[in-house]
Amino acid sequence: MQIRRFHCPELAPDLGEAVLPAGEAAHALRVLRLAPGDRLQLLNGHGLVAEAELLPPPNGARHPREARCRILSCRECPPPRPLTLVVAPPRGKAFDLVLRAATELGFTAVQPVLSLRGVARPEECSSNWQETILAAMKQSINVWPPKVLAPQPFDALLDATPPATMLFGALPRDGARPRPDAASIQSIWVGPEGGFAPEEEEALLAHGAIPATIGPAVLRVETAVPALAGYLAALSIS
Amino acid sequence: MQIRRFHCPELAPDLGEAVLPAGEAAHALRVLRLAPGDRLQLLNGHGLVAEAELLPPPNGARHPREARCRILSCRECPPPRPLTLVVAPPRGKAFDLVLRAATELGFTAVQPVLSLRGVARPEECSSNWQETILAAMKQSINVWPPKVLAPQPFDALLDATPPATMLFGALPRDGARPRPDAASIQSIWVGPEGGFAPEEEEALLAHGAIPATIGPAVLRVETAVPALAGYLAALSIS
Repeated sequence: MQIRRFHCPELAPDLGEAVLPAGEAAHALRVLRLAPGDRLQLLNGHGLVAEAELLPPPNGARHPREARCRILSCRECPPPRPLTLVVAPPRGKAFDLVLRAATELGFTAVQPVLSLRGVARPEECSSNWQETILAAMKQSINVWPPKVLAPQPFDALLDATPPATMLFGALPRDGARPRPDAASIQSIWVGPEGGFAPEEEEALLAHGAIPATIGPAVLRVETAVPALAGYLAALSIS
Repeated sequence: MQIRRFHCPELAPDLGEAVLPAGEAAHALRVLRLAPGDRLQLLNGHGLVAEAELLPPPNGARHPREARCRILSCRECPPPRPLTLVVAPPRGKAFDLVLRAATELGFTAVQPVLSLRGVARPEECSSNWQETILAAMKQSINVWPPKVLAPQPFDALLDATPPATMLFGALPRDGARPRPDAASIQSIWVGPEGGFAPEEEEALLAHGAIPATIGPAVLRVETAVPALAGYLAALSIS
């Protein structure tokens, strides 16, 4: 049987029992109808993974609302190497797709950037992102899902970024493309559909960012994000 | 003003005028309310791109249904190098996302594969794929959108594939990863969420396919497709 995964922020090493948050408990008990003794996996969202089993409800309640679990074992996964996705957020549902993909792809932070051609206003970036990321964490079994940071203007963000540590999505350009050193890359910058504005590209290049081209066509943001993560993965093989 | 793009299958070199198909005409006239003299771009889906302008309706009709265009110029784009996406189709809307991404990423064919862990039945793969691909063609300005082939069983497809021409998505594995020759790759194989079954991976390896790993987490198919296309793009830089 498929093991069910739940977010349990109170999980800690050496804990004997843990209680699921209300939303997770409702899903476990009312949607999946898990019963006492059923196995489940708990993730705290910061590297801890526990095998657990559901305990009987207190007072033998017939329609329990609380899901208390006995922790059978708990391990701590080391954090991945820091990699920030700096992204011009697309509107609405498309930003959810970006967050899901960023979680699967192992980004440790998502930094919305307000760029010249960007379409989403800052307040559009953060609807239910926490829920989206937690769902993607459970589905992809990435125990270190990314943090979503507050949106920042392009220039401020670039100033705060160490030089020559960025890869950015760009349309094909003339000139040789030296193979960058993957280990030096700390962030991947993805502009809005159609890319960053020319003056932004110039600023990125002046700051030592490496242009990465996937092909000649225009990519939507939600396509460019995984494509550039794959690009970086290939750069890191010997 | 943004240039509007339309699919016009009857477009041919040296054509003086062309008529949009009914659906495209309705979009141009009734949704976008284009008027005689407005500029538009026509794509035939096989490498032809024409600049055109809308002609007045015949008989001066006030609510025309036919969109006839004068061709101002027409150019032929050379076909891209062949690259097939062999993919275990996910269900429903997710297959649409794969087709959109495949169009943006420059795949020349999409070959659904029926694999051991696949979830979609063959008849689920082809709902409105033609419409999805044409929309992605216009949005991404890829004038050579992919063909979608009939689903094939894994074994038959592997037998028909030239050895050592494939890249496939795989979870991390032990052993050295030699850097493959990007020029030899003719297809990218993406299994269902969680990857191909172990016996399928063995068959791929025995056939000379190169495993490509993006990260330790489980990727959805719609994330794995662009990630592997990006992986191949990075392999092809010097």
